[in-house]
Amino acid sequence: MGGAGASDARARQWPFSVVRASDADAFVDALGGDATRVLTRAEDVKKYSVDWMGKYVGASAVVVLPRTTEEVSKVMRHCHARRIAVVPQGGNTGLVGGGTPTRDEVVVSLERMRDIVSIDEDAGCAVCEAGVVLEELESAVRARGMTVPLDLGAKGKCQMGGCVSTNAGGLRLLRYGSLRGSVLGLEVVLPNGDVLDLVRTLRKDNTGYDLKQLFIGAEGTLGVVTKVAISTPRAPRSVNVALFGLESFAKCVEMLKLARGLLGEILSAYEFFDRESLDLVLAQLSGTRDPLPGKPCEFYVVIETSGSDAKHDTAKLDAFLNVVKSQRIVVDGVVGRDEKHAFALWTLRERISVALKYAGAVYKYDLSLPTARMYNLVVVLRDRLRPMFGSRVKVLGYGHAGDGNLHLNVSCAEYDDAIERAIEPFVYEYTRDERGSVSAEHGLGVMKAEEIHYSKDAKAVELMATMKRALDPFGIMNPYKVLPAAAVGLSKL
Amino acid sequence: MGGAGASDARARQWPFSVVRASDADAFVDALGGDATRVLTRAEDVKKYSVDWMGKYVGASAVVVLPRTTEEVSKVMRHCHARRIAVVPQGGNTGLVGGGTPTRDEVVVSLERMRDIVSIDEDAGCAVCEAGVVLEELESAVRARGMTVPLDLGAKGKCQMGGCVSTNAGGLRLLRYGSLRGSVLGLEVVLPNGDVLDLVRTLRKDNTGYDLKQLFIGAEGTLGVVTKVAISTPRAPRSVNVALFGLESFAKCVEMLKLARGLLGEILSAYEFFDRESLDLVLAQLSGTRDPLPGKPCEFYVVIETSGSDAKHDTAKLDAFLNVVKSQRIVVDGVVGRDEKHAFALWTLRERISVALKYAGAVYKYDLSLPTARMYNLVVVLRDRLRPMFGSRVKVLGYGHAGDGNLHLNVSCAEYDDAIERAIEPFVYEYTRDERGSVSAEHGLGVMKAEEIHYSKDAKAVELMATMKRALDPFGIMNPYKVLPAAAVGLSKL
Repeated sequence: MGGAGASDARARQWPFSVVRASDADAFVDALGGDATRVLTRAEDVKKYSVDWMGKYVGASAVVVLPRTTEEVSKVMRHCHARRIAVVPQGGNTGLVGGGTPTRDEVVVSLERMRDIVSIDEDAGCAVCEAGVVLEELESAVRARGMTVPLDLGAKGKCQMGGCVSTNAGGLRLLRYGSLRGSVLGLEVVLPNGDVLDLVRTLRKDNTGYDLKQLFIGAEGTLGVVTKVAISTPRAPRSVNVALFGLESFAKCVEMLKLARGLLGEILSAYEFFDRESLDLVLAQLSGTRDPLPGKPCEFYVVIETSGSDAKHDTAKLDAFLNVVKSQRIVVDGVVGRDEKHAFALWTLRERISVALKYAGAVYKYDLSLPTARMYNLVVVLRDRLRPMFGSRVKVLGYGHAGDGNLHLNVSCAEYDDAIERAIEPFVYEYTRDERGSVSAEHGLGVMKAEEIHYSKDAKAVELMATMKRALDPFGIMNPYKVLPAAAVGLSKL
Repeated sequence: MGGAGASDARARQWPFSVVRASDADAFVDALGGDATRVLTRAEDVKKYSVDWMGKYVGASAVVVLPRTTEEVSKVMRHCHARRIAVVPQGGNTGLVGGGTPTRDEVVVSLERMRDIVSIDEDAGCAVCEAGVVLEELESAVRARGMTVPLDLGAKGKCQMGGCVSTNAGGLRLLRYGSLRGSVLGLEVVLPNGDVLDLVRTLRKDNTGYDLKQLFIGAEGTLGVVTKVAISTPRAPRSVNVALFGLESFAKCVEMLKLARGLLGEILSAYEFFDRESLDLVLAQLSGTRDPLPGKPCEFYVVIETSGSDAKHDTAKLDAFLNVVKSQRIVVDGVVGRDEKHAFALWTLRERISVALKYAGAVYKYDLSLPTARMYNLVVVLRDRLRPMFGSRVKVLGYGHAGDGNLHLNVSCAEYDDAIERAIEPFVYEYTRDERGSVSAEHGLGVMKAEEIHYSKDAKAVELMATMKRALDPFGIMNPYKVLPAAAVGLSKL
């Protein structure tokens, strides 16, 4: 065992205990003797040890599948006493390696905690366990005329605990704001096993510091989220989807301003993607079709409106269409005729990341940048990589234009350090110089823990480390994620 | 001087240094030699030492009026080194004694820091210094077609730093959500004088823990907010105000559900007040008139809609009016004919707290409760106090029904401990049993610091105290506010 105080080089690099057979036994005890929920066989453990892209590969020996908060608490209490490193895992749909082990951390998967505890129509909120899949919760509240104020491409797999822990943004942020406003309460198991019960369903509660905010977006480095209370607004009665082709990104920005004015309170999504993104989707995903055949454009925008009166919404959308067509802001546009057609239009935007996965390796960057200049980086990076790698790499730009959030993706057949070195730190430096964020919504995970300084100054990082130490003195919670190793007293991996 | 380690009884009770003449000199130095901004004469200091209601009276000897963040930093550095207690003060419009001294704390007033730093129409955000008055910022962004997503009765006096520090809720929360979503960035001077620069204007930024959340709603106990970056959505093109009279609170709740459905995304406020509140306003404030003369009702609701298309908004409101009239949910209703009339309707709700002040002493409670049962407490309390005090006390209920937030007020000629004892802890216990919040939006201040346990369990309070100690090891920042004295190592005041 390499204890926290051990002095050999290995221990300093990885100051946590190696997991023994007796630890696995202790986990079985913590789970009431149910050995079927403590996985130790390599073939069982494997899928929890690697992320869905196959980019981040750990070497966990044990996966624990608790069913209750109390079980999570007992598992954490043991790990805390034994200085065992832990990675909490949700749907494993993250993009920055935040939910998979870096070495042999014990994986605490929330997948068996999937009860929807309560749905309250009067108050407009729901309480669920962390392992509830976003789409399941959406279906359950839809049946009562409400909606979850969060929607993601990964909705069929991502779990609510993971969504909260990563402060997921997604497709509805423009309309409903961030989870920092929508999450009403949380239950969290702290690194020492204590259970912090912050499950409330009040809209307003100014009794002391808002502790739940600490755990929203902490990517599991401060505790394990076990329950989520979230506001669930009325489902819109009328939803429209339209897709537009445009000549330039400047036109996309011009149209965004018009949309804000003319669509106003019913504008619920404003998403863009470039030609390269569309080409990749059409090439990789069967059943997809060019939405504007015969009129190839450089840029595409998907607009969604959500409102309470179909007639009013259609009138607003028609007025908007007239303006953007007559002012020649768009090359062409198409409105979703019915739910199926609308879904097909959304799919083109929503499934780009799946198409990227099918295409091979991908370097993903998730940046906040000033909206008007956002796409410049895609152009600059394309110009930078072309002379080095020619057609071996493709640079794609898409994202949540309405939120100032660019998803910059470099697609290639296989991961290649030379390509990575050509992109990083270039992209981060560019973002820093624009006073942007090197992680708009994906989080830092293991991918960008050491890059935090591009968006946060030393004092801020120091204060984050102070909070980490206060909550997790042994540093066992999801080590090497979010904060630079040195800031929390670890040496580099 | 009673140092932190001194052992006499007085020092234990108040473990901070007594402010000396040499400290005032040091503050003058910190302010670049400008002695006019360090107030020490009793007549100058007095108004900063007492809250606007005259309920919380301290005994400060010095008020400091910094103009820059650097000056705040120097002042805090001195206070930290000398263990001098500090109370940051904004517009002094708080209701729980959070912004006034409990003893002889140095008052750091932000009133001279009132620059609007920038307004960005493209991004829809503004950056201002902490001392900017809410109404000033609203005027400035209105001139560019935007609005501040916060509105309060105290808007003519309350400052942005204070609004953020108290996580002010107010009249627009229903539409724009809480400040936890709207505030994009902050600059904060920490208790040791360090400046934490978290001023960003990005919609999305998941680079590490969201430190600014710590200071939103901390009521100045973790640092001094010096700059605020806030999102400023497009101002609505069309605003309608309607006032309704109803027979019962149950009808108010029934109408709220209909409003959510029929007005949907344009519903921007749903406020209620009872007969007692209206009577008081009409009695105390000249120029006010009964909105529904000849039809006295037990309850009144003010509804505001905000939208982008006047025709659509009016159509929705008309449809709503038809339903609530034909279904006899309301006794009567009146729609604001023009801006002046709409303002008059709003005034009846907005100025209740001013009317209460004119009427004498007032015990104010700001509670989150399950909406449907919210008004029960008013009835129960009225029944409880009547046999004891007869007509000496009036119990009023009003508030943000759409947010589940009741303002319960007990009005009497003069403050009287017997009345207070009859209300407290009764009201807090009732709220706890309903799993409500004893402070929905006003904060805890000095009034409710010891009552936090009615809404938060011991583990949560302990964790808050951990964070307080991490940021403010000497406890000099706004002592005796927010957290129970014992939790941060102080004895009772």
